[in-house]
Amino acid sequence: MNTFGRHFRVTTFGESHGPAIGAVIDGCPAGMPLSEADIQPMLDRRRPGGPLSSPRAETDRVEILSGVFEGKTTGTPLALIIPNRDVRSHDYDALREVFRPGHADYTYWKKYGLRDHRGGGRSSGRETAARVAAGAVALRVLEREGISVSGAVLSVRGESDPDRFAVVIREAQAAGDSVGGIVEVRAAGIPAGLGSPVFGKLDAAIAAALMGIGAVKGVEIGEGFGAAALLGSENNDAMDATGFLSNHAGGVLGGISTGAEIVARIAVKPTPSIALSQRTVDTAGREREVSIRGRHDPCIALRIVPVAEAMLALVIVDALLEERAYAVNDASGL
Amino acid sequence: MNTFGRHFRVTTFGESHGPAIGAVIDGCPAGMPLSEADIQPMLDRRRPGGPLSSPRAETDRVEILSGVFEGKTTGTPLALIIPNRDVRSHDYDALREVFRPGHADYTYWKKYGLRDHRGGGRSSGRETAARVAAGAVALRVLEREGISVSGAVLSVRGESDPDRFAVVIREAQAAGDSVGGIVEVRAAGIPAGLGSPVFGKLDAAIAAALMGIGAVKGVEIGEGFGAAALLGSENNDAMDATGFLSNHAGGVLGGISTGAEIVARIAVKPTPSIALSQRTVDTAGREREVSIRGRHDPCIALRIVPVAEAMLALVIVDALLEERAYAVNDASGL
Amino acid sequence: MNTFGRHFRVTTFGESHGPAIGAVIDGCPAGMPLSEADIQPMLDRRRPGGPLSSPRAETDRVEILSGVFEGKTTGTPLALIIPNRDVRSHDYDALREVFRPGHADYTYWKKYGLRDHRGGGRSSGRETAARVAAGAVALRVLEREGISVSGAVLSVRGESDPDRFAVVIREAQAAGDSVGGIVEVRAAGIPAGLGSPVFGKLDAAIAAALMGIGAVKGVEIGEGFGAAALLGSENNDAMDATGFLSNHAGGVLGGISTGAEIVARIAVKPTPSIALSQRTVDTAGREREVSIRGRHDPCIALRIVPVAEAMLALVIVDALLEERAYAVNDASGL
Amino acid sequence: MNTFGRHFRVTTFGESHGPAIGAVIDGCPAGMPLSEADIQPMLDRRRPGGPLSSPRAETDRVEILSGVFEGKTTGTPLALIIPNRDVRSHDYDALREVFRPGHADYTYWKKYGLRDHRGGGRSSGRETAARVAAGAVALRVLEREGISVSGAVLSVRGESDPDRFAVVIREAQAAGDSVGGIVEVRAAGIPAGLGSPVFGKLDAAIAAALMGIGAVKGVEIGEGFGAAALLGSENNDAMDATGFLSNHAGGVLGGISTGAEIVARIAVKPTPSIALSQRTVDTAGREREVSIRGRHDPCIALRIVPVAEAMLALVIVDALLEERAYAVNDASGL
Repeated sequence: MNTFGRHFRVTTFGESHGPAIGAVIDGCPAGMPLSEADIQPMLDRRRPGGPLSSPRAETDRVEILSGVFEGKTTGTPLALIIPNRDVRSHDYDALREVFRPGHADYTYWKKYGLRDHRGGGRSSGRETAARVAAGAVALRVLEREGISVSGAVLSVRGESDPDRFAVVIREAQAAGDSVGGIVEVRAAGIPAGLGSPVFGKLDAAIAAALMGIGAVKGVEIGEGFGAAALLGSENNDAMDATGFLSNHAGGVLGGISTGAEIVARIAVKPTPSIALSQRTVDTAGREREVSIRGRHDPCIALRIVPVAEAMLALVIVDALLEERAYAVNDASGL
Repeated sequence: MNTFGRHFRVTTFGESHGPAIGAVIDGCPAGMPLSEADIQPMLDRRRPGGPLSSPRAETDRVEILSGVFEGKTTGTPLALIIPNRDVRSHDYDALREVFRPGHADYTYWKKYGLRDHRGGGRSSGRETAARVAAGAVALRVLEREGISVSGAVLSVRGESDPDRFAVVIREAQAAGDSVGGIVEVRAAGIPAGLGSPVFGKLDAAIAAALMGIGAVKGVEIGEGFGAAALLGSENNDAMDATGFLSNHAGGVLGGISTGAEIVARIAVKPTPSIALSQRTVDTAGREREVSIRGRHDPCIALRIVPVAEAMLALVIVDALLEERAYAVNDASGL
Repeated sequence: MNTFGRHFRVTTFGESHGPAIGAVIDGCPAGMPLSEADIQPMLDRRRPGGPLSSPRAETDRVEILSGVFEGKTTGTPLALIIPNRDVRSHDYDALREVFRPGHADYTYWKKYGLRDHRGGGRSSGRETAARVAAGAVALRVLEREGISVSGAVLSVRGESDPDRFAVVIREAQAAGDSVGGIVEVRAAGIPAGLGSPVFGKLDAAIAAALMGIGAVKGVEIGEGFGAAALLGSENNDAMDATGFLSNHAGGVLGGISTGAEIVARIAVKPTPSIALSQRTVDTAGREREVSIRGRHDPCIALRIVPVAEAMLALVIVDALLEERAYAVNDASGL
Repeated sequence: MNTFGRHFRVTTFGESHGPAIGAVIDGCPAGMPLSEADIQPMLDRRRPGGPLSSPRAETDRVEILSGVFEGKTTGTPLALIIPNRDVRSHDYDALREVFRPGHADYTYWKKYGLRDHRGGGRSSGRETAARVAAGAVALRVLEREGISVSGAVLSVRGESDPDRFAVVIREAQAAGDSVGGIVEVRAAGIPAGLGSPVFGKLDAAIAAALMGIGAVKGVEIGEGFGAAALLGSENNDAMDATGFLSNHAGGVLGGISTGAEIVARIAVKPTPSIALSQRTVDTAGREREVSIRGRHDPCIALRIVPVAEAMLALVIVDALLEERAYAVNDASGL
């Protein structure tokens, strides 16, 4: 369950306590120029350390171990590794036996019997660095096809004026609290025809990819939840000879891309680690009060932007390779 | 791409123009009592014909072809078939070359070159009967584990008073229009621990399963999009010795079930087939006006309820089987 | 575990005690003429009833339930069903608790706890009818690509003169015994380039497909076991401007097709059901003597020919679709 | 196509021209003591440098990058890397455009258009080091279950007296030639019940795993090809109260393990690289004579032993995890 995709298959590995994390990409097309410099900038965007984020200095440096020869992909598996640094596992010792509210502590404990056990170190946000590295490779593939992906924070704690984001976040942080937000990702230049009925729909794949990011509690495409309150005559996208006259569909109809921009939004919950005191229990079932101090992002939505872009890129490149396969089979009259 | 699930694998087949549709389930546990009578009631709930739905008389009768011996499942593949009846394909002739707004006509045409071509007949809602039949079997499995699944329409065109649903729908229908709605599905009795990091998360699987239903444009779990506007102190679910004190998480933390009720909501767009005239184009690129008459549900959200229940049941039974596998591997010290 | 293939995916279902067996094919290319008449002849070749085979009158009639519209495949799943007839399950009652030597009775009992339980009815040769039906569809796809598949019995109990096969078989049968044999299958017209390193090799797939047929105990490609006794200078296939000068490789080098004929041979063990008395035990561990009477083929190798052809066809069509996908991805510079 | 297994999933990466090769194992049970010292000895056995093998000094050192915490597996993906050394790619320059007989040069060229292109560097025997590393981990898992795997060369160029192997090999080498051989692998301590009908049979998986090793042209289980010449009364394994009285079946009946030792043999072709002059063509279709000098093993069968053991171990551990999953599902009455 550490592999994503069917054609452009990404397997991530690594946890914060080991020497490195990384990803193996199987199915990357051959002949594409690729070096670490194509991946590093996106990793840097995910890195903590900005004024509104955690002060940890994760200087992630990616290295390509295989799959590139004389500067070009060979079609063999790409192995990407990112050495771990700045690991302060002692920070967490005090919380070893307490279930932090809103965290996966309780569910991992119920599933695995102990918290660090299988998957324990994988639940941290650190694993997303490997996804971002793989997503950066996917973006290089898409770029050659004229497809671009972008993301932005739409709102923070309901506030949609970007000038106000910092104020809202600092206010919460000062109060020992945290805030949620809404992130939008878009993909432009998509050909019509991506996605496969009935269990390989493009929107279903996007939903899984984005909901699978930690802290995401909702995904919508195009008009999304707003569509539930509309009339058919309002929500349908009419066409004229120039194409679609609107994009309520968000670029997907019947699970297949329309060629219009793909637009998806995700709901990011507030960072569960807060300094305010909270009621919880420990592994012995004793009631406890917990106040979580340490280097935590007060608004994780900000750092999720490149992760969401990466996941959208992975979905689209996978659908693109799938479509190539099917299109040819058809065209050939095979 | 017509197979769903990893352990409880459902492959659906069939289109409205053929003799039958159906599903093959590979991975259903052995020794479970099962007959057509366990499946038929859920199929009947999906059937059109109610006062607010399409007048088509689809009297779907399911037959079990394999996998049951002396009234019990044998663990071999279950083949379920539902013969087709009341096929009036001529109804659609007038629309053969026109892209109906909000439908998959355009995307299928772009993908396959012709509308009836691969997947054409599969995009209709009829395919969901096979999903519901398979879901009914999944529900039988879950029932034996003390798990129940239920669904309901929460709102129609923004109206959340159920007494008003019929009024809102008839009003739109009388105007030649249609309405969207929000459907909620819940699963109770879930053990903690279902779902697998990092690409097999339970909420990611739920999102894919529900977004993959035609007309669904958004999925949220627990507090969902509402969480984006909350503070961490508001959204975190505190615990005391009796368990969680709230369920903002909707039963999933870190992609793994908490043991609390799973709560998911979906946004269903208004039925795209409406009598009102709409601007569109045909396959030759000519601008056209189209008014769609025929037997269409003015609010598809109503009939989606059993389909959403079926998909949620399929996700949960698959996660349950996955968990059994892993749990043992661990416990045995293998 | 009832699905074969990655692109041309075949899921078989059904057991002898139910109303029907069948197969669902997901991934069959669209636009190919197909009717029951394309499948029936191959099924008829597998049918028992010849002078040297079991006298059971299995008149298997295949029906296509989905995936064909106006005589052509649509690209949607093809569901094929074959109703069961002539089921005499009482024949087996006497053996209910005895492990027949050479049969799967013991292993199924160890695996499932009871013999009819999961998979029980699936271990019979009857399941191969579904494979043959699916293989016949694969052969239609291959035929359009100029690829043909053929099979033959090479030897029976070591006797390689076909004129003597009947004598050898009747002799064993008269003595209450049975005989093994060697079957060869060939595929001609194969393009070079099928198969994928490193775990998707064509010869590995052929080996799995053929070894997975009941009663097969060995698979070899080209020179096969003979190659182990050769020098490199004897076994290498030299080339001149016209192509390969020999085919010791059997059409596969490095797991990828060379374009030469694919040649594979399988070792088929003697039918385990024999009238001669044999020592065995029953489910209670008591020592027993067993003599198996009934309608059994004295040489199962004869009836395996179309099954082996079907499996080879399924492997090749899957590799062909895989290759199409990859070839394009490369060629496009994607 | 660089992933092997369904539960214990091994993805290999790397080619001889890059900085490292390696493997990621997803699905290794948690809580098992594991360090590099458990893997290194098996890697050393595969290493060239013995008196009868290539003089290349590949000092493969494995490093575990993830999945181990405080000396025990955590259940998260294990990333193993082996840095490359002693790469002399210039050795091969002279052969750049010539298809070496018996090699994958021609098939890769036909498949990918250029030899170093996708998979090029993956066809070398070097990739098997990653398989052996992963196999060593599988063997550790099996060891805890009381299962052991062993292998041996049975014959070289038809000579079955081990004392004579060195003579036969040196004789061929002195003549500028090479020899094939037969390798046997065995697994003892296997529980009855591994393997799944109908497309997940244990013998089918073994066949694929072993045939997928470069230079292997045949696989047989138990009596293998010999069974084709036997009578049923000779080939059936009788039982008494103590168990099976013989093991013609090689430990597998009906695709499921019997509990007896698993015995498989593979035919290894002579090393295709020989100093003797051979007729071939180049990429321009010109006829050429080629004599391959360099550091080549005159009998690759010797070095295949640990690779075959590794692949058998991977198949068995995967079947074991599969069986755990199913067994529980059944036992629980789920």
